[in-house]
Amino acid sequence: MSTEISPLAPKSDPVLPPIAGVRIETAEAGIKYKGRTDLMVMVFDRPAEVAGVFTTSKCPSAPVDLCRANLPGGSARIVVVNSGNANAFTGAKGAKATADTAGAAAAAAGCAPSEVFLASTGVIGEPLDAAKFSGLLGDMVKSAVSDRWADAARAIMTTDTYPKVATRTFEIAGASCTINGIAKGAGMIAPDMATMLSFIVTDAPIAANVLQAALSDHVGSTFNAVTVDSDTSTSDTVLLFSTGGAQITETSDPQLAGFREALRSLMEELSLKIVRDGEGARKQVEVLVTGAASDEAAGRIARSIANSPLVKTAVAGEDANWGRVVMAVGKAGEEADRDRLAIWFGDVRVAVDGERDPDYSEAEASAVMKRDEITIRADIGLGSGQARVWTCDLTKAYVEINGDYRS
Amino acid sequence: MSTEISPLAPKSDPVLPPIAGVRIETAEAGIKYKGRTDLMVMVFDRPAEVAGVFTTSKCPSAPVDLCRANLPGGSARIVVVNSGNANAFTGAKGAKATADTAGAAAAAAGCAPSEVFLASTGVIGEPLDAAKFSGLLGDMVKSAVSDRWADAARAIMTTDTYPKVATRTFEIAGASCTINGIAKGAGMIAPDMATMLSFIVTDAPIAANVLQAALSDHVGSTFNAVTVDSDTSTSDTVLLFSTGGAQITETSDPQLAGFREALRSLMEELSLKIVRDGEGARKQVEVLVTGAASDEAAGRIARSIANSPLVKTAVAGEDANWGRVVMAVGKAGEEADRDRLAIWFGDVRVAVDGERDPDYSEAEASAVMKRDEITIRADIGLGSGQARVWTCDLTKAYVEINGDYRS
Repeated sequence: MSTEISPLAPKSDPVLPPIAGVRIETAEAGIKYKGRTDLMVMVFDRPAEVAGVFTTSKCPSAPVDLCRANLPGGSARIVVVNSGNANAFTGAKGAKATADTAGAAAAAAGCAPSEVFLASTGVIGEPLDAAKFSGLLGDMVKSAVSDRWADAARAIMTTDTYPKVATRTFEIAGASCTINGIAKGAGMIAPDMATMLSFIVTDAPIAANVLQAALSDHVGSTFNAVTVDSDTSTSDTVLLFSTGGAQITETSDPQLAGFREALRSLMEELSLKIVRDGEGARKQVEVLVTGAASDEAAGRIARSIANSPLVKTAVAGEDANWGRVVMAVGKAGEEADRDRLAIWFGDVRVAVDGERDPDYSEAEASAVMKRDEITIRADIGLGSGQARVWTCDLTKAYVEINGDYRS
Repeated sequence: MSTEISPLAPKSDPVLPPIAGVRIETAEAGIKYKGRTDLMVMVFDRPAEVAGVFTTSKCPSAPVDLCRANLPGGSARIVVVNSGNANAFTGAKGAKATADTAGAAAAAAGCAPSEVFLASTGVIGEPLDAAKFSGLLGDMVKSAVSDRWADAARAIMTTDTYPKVATRTFEIAGASCTINGIAKGAGMIAPDMATMLSFIVTDAPIAANVLQAALSDHVGSTFNAVTVDSDTSTSDTVLLFSTGGAQITETSDPQLAGFREALRSLMEELSLKIVRDGEGARKQVEVLVTGAASDEAAGRIARSIANSPLVKTAVAGEDANWGRVVMAVGKAGEEADRDRLAIWFGDVRVAVDGERDPDYSEAEASAVMKRDEITIRADIGLGSGQARVWTCDLTKAYVEINGDYRS
């Protein structure tokens, strides 16, 4: 496990205010870790509206299966999240563990099992002993309070080196509303112990279908736009809840503008907090692709750059190695014309018209690479498609963390 | 640059016998490296038949453009290869450098520029000063001799830690023939200083179209089945020549059986020598996927496993972390049923029917992981599609080599 906090960690965290209708508790269930919390519950005393997005993995975890099954009901009373074990690739035992946990959680919250949502993050393939924590849920529901967001963010951490929290306020029909979110990383496209999980709650009176539309709209440019190492977890889960009832039921309702921007901005903040805590990360990298044949093509090129081990090691080495960006554009498989390509590191144009910029200054480019936030831009010169992806550098610490992790 | 030789280097190299009709010379042109050869020519005193395969990059190097243009002629008199500079993304200057080199080489060999083949490997985006070596070509053609294969393999190295050579003999119509090959790595899917290049010559009397068919048939299971880091070079080039004339012109000729197997086996040996010299590699990993819906699906799943940073760091850490193999199967996007999946490390089955093998022994699996050649097999349990891919582990040395390289 990492003990050193990422140098990109936030200097300070916002204090998340209570949100009416949701209470939180954490506990030490001893699932894997010693001396820290590893279990978190969110309790909705009245049914909350709920929306969700999940991993695209063809081998999803048992809790993802359960959330997918319960989501169409649109109603949530309790969320149970454990760290230390992903309950993924655990076969019939895994399904039994989620059923048992859902049963215990439903009994604790006094609701139907279909109103329970679960997430697990940690090692894949080890059976999860739900008995370790199902007995704790009754007391946790009783003692849960409204101001425990920071504790919640800590309880769901795995290889994260800092908790990830964000909050926004916005107005709907003249009333002030709040939205809080927590997340753990390190990547939507992420490893077994770094599954991306996020839980977001608002007190705005928004129905599940509207929550779902807003969540689905913004996930592409936020959580799905970060990549640490191109690996996709079995367990990625984002759940969005509202505790204010289901008054707003139309996705086209103009009152939603403030909520939508607050949600997008909060998701972006959490996404950046995840990428800045990428395993071994020392630098945040924004990859901007412009001038592609389409937005989709731009997205694939941006991801090809952001996932390239050679680009990421060059960033780690503070080397303005734009040849590797050319390589990554070329391998993306999208339309590209070598002789129209231009590349920037920060605001320094290093290549234009298919060759090194005649005014290129190695000193200026090197100065950009020494920063801890770097933008790499590639203009393809063909159309108006664009995309933005965030990643981090690939360091020896990544290899160390992931070479030593399970044992 | 690496100075330490890969622990997976061959204990000894075969001595490549002369092949009638081809002469070789190397020189120190001082393109980038000091105190080593960086220029290699192969001269065919009578026109050789030629076939080739090249990178799929949308931003290919200038020498790849030239080879593609000359290949339809089917005739080769001279090959010029330099290391230290890839002449890729060098715009009009790059095209001029290849034209100048082709002109100088044609003058030296007394042939048409369309009978010249070029390859360059090294840094991308730096202009290549062809004047550094075009003046050497005349003398090199004169002094070239037939027994310089090992020297040729050394002159084309970049981050390679050992030269890659292989030889085979086979029979055609009762006559004994020879095929020699050299290569440099470290990967068909490879970085800028580790472009995959290979040059193969046989004295068998086989026409260019037949060479091309055989080369294209076998490249998928050999050079294209190795991956070091998922990055595709701008410059990957494999050229196959015959010096024995063009008597055999039908791809269906039954006399070709011996040649085809010798070629396949030689390409496999060179491919494995490349992957065993992957940057920072300490272990060779064979990924076998069986039981997929199709061979194509198996190939994509195998590549997803072989390219996963998390699988590769686990191998580096000698950790039998099969959960990461599940993750990589799941993210491949191909049909998979968690509950039919089985996984082996070596001959130890670690998972079956969607969960940990009941007879799984951590000690046995760990013993497999300590070897320097490891097979990871995933049976998808759905059909009869299969594929094999070779890769290496991802170590801190990879990050070191690629973080420090250009500067």
